[in-house]
Amino acid sequence: MIPLRGIPELGEGDDLAAEILGAARRVGGLESGDVLVVAQKAVSKVEGRTVRLADVEPSERAQELAGDGDARRMEVILRETRTVVRARPPLVIAETSHGFVCASAGVDSSNAGRVETVVLLPRDPDASAAGLREALLEATGAEVAVIVSDSFGRAWRQGTTDVALGVAGLTPILDLNGRRDSVGYELHSTQIAVADEIAGAAELVMGKTDAVPAAIVRGVRISGEGSGAELLMPRERDLFR
Amino acid sequence: MIPLRGIPELGEGDDLAAEILGAARRVGGLESGDVLVVAQKAVSKVEGRTVRLADVEPSERAQELAGDGDARRMEVILRETRTVVRARPPLVIAETSHGFVCASAGVDSSNAGRVETVVLLPRDPDASAAGLREALLEATGAEVAVIVSDSFGRAWRQGTTDVALGVAGLTPILDLNGRRDSVGYELHSTQIAVADEIAGAAELVMGKTDAVPAAIVRGVRISGEGSGAELLMPRERDLFR
Repeated sequence: MIPLRGIPELGEGDDLAAEILGAARRVGGLESGDVLVVAQKAVSKVEGRTVRLADVEPSERAQELAGDGDARRMEVILRETRTVVRARPPLVIAETSHGFVCASAGVDSSNAGRVETVVLLPRDPDASAAGLREALLEATGAEVAVIVSDSFGRAWRQGTTDVALGVAGLTPILDLNGRRDSVGYELHSTQIAVADEIAGAAELVMGKTDAVPAAIVRGVRISGEGSGAELLMPRERDLFR
Repeated sequence: MIPLRGIPELGEGDDLAAEILGAARRVGGLESGDVLVVAQKAVSKVEGRTVRLADVEPSERAQELAGDGDARRMEVILRETRTVVRARPPLVIAETSHGFVCASAGVDSSNAGRVETVVLLPRDPDASAAGLREALLEATGAEVAVIVSDSFGRAWRQGTTDVALGVAGLTPILDLNGRRDSVGYELHSTQIAVADEIAGAAELVMGKTDAVPAAIVRGVRISGEGSGAELLMPRERDLFR
């Protein structure tokens, strides 16, 4: 895991691929087979997915759900929300329009550049990942996989771990169905969310308070193609919605 | 991440610390500051936490919940269960006696040495981790942290990621509350489950079908003391029980 340092505060329209390339060059460059993990917030900022709270008029529902929190922020959360899964004001666990289930529909106020701005999730994290992958391939010739990551809480467990929202250039789930384990017993329904594990591993060197919006994960055997959408539990199989 | 290979199939009473040390020596040995991640199944086997299904008489409830699955296996699951959180026969999500919420109360049939045996979670994974840490310190003088890991499914997301059941020698949650991010905005309630991210990272080199029951994670800044129990969401804060 190689943290990419020295990337400046980003804003709408900035060339994220160029910034990543510059930072990667300082640590020896990208190699084919690398997985580049990029924090969602960096992607969202260059894509202009930010909202100034001063421009937001909160609805009645937002005021209710916000409790003693900021109703304008809750209004933004509700606009990003397909279904409210759980609410305990001012905490909302929501299914986003993409299908992610997470706190505050992924709307984040820290690291936003100024206090009164919130950052939304990218509109299509898989497209964001694919775009970065393409730009890096064009610039360097290196076939890297890209993961757009974010910190999600979990049911039943404390703390967040980073997971893969957007994926390009690797199969996010390693499916061992039908393979045999070391004593010849057939493994049933063992599917490993390797993209989430890679995102979590990268978080260990990216941190939250440092300006390290990306990391290279090298030496992981990756293969195939896929999308972050594959990591979403289909509603009909979901016991918790 | 350094996989520890060449550890033989383990059984009750085997010296797991000695096996790990032998495997670690072949890759240069353990160093102070390393995190040793050990698969729960290896720990459970040496602790004799296995049950022969031939010895199990299933209850009526087990027969109901098993559906067309093995009712004896379900009986073992129910004995490990404090509360059934969700059931869709033959699938059960249970809170174990330790407080973990996971599929089948952590009871696993693959890799058990023979098909008709199931493996339970360790009785006290934190104690297992502490015991290993102590034994490794005594044998080598190296201050390593130990994580006993297992593969857990997640609500709303497909696939498993490895998480920390037992922890010794590190603080499992990095608490950034009150710290300021890179633009001076105070971070609220940012707690990162680093022990789970380390367990997931180790899984990437441990795999499921290979006989790699342990891995060294080197170069992660760890500190403090703590337990895997700290990773459990307290019931009163839990929106999903």
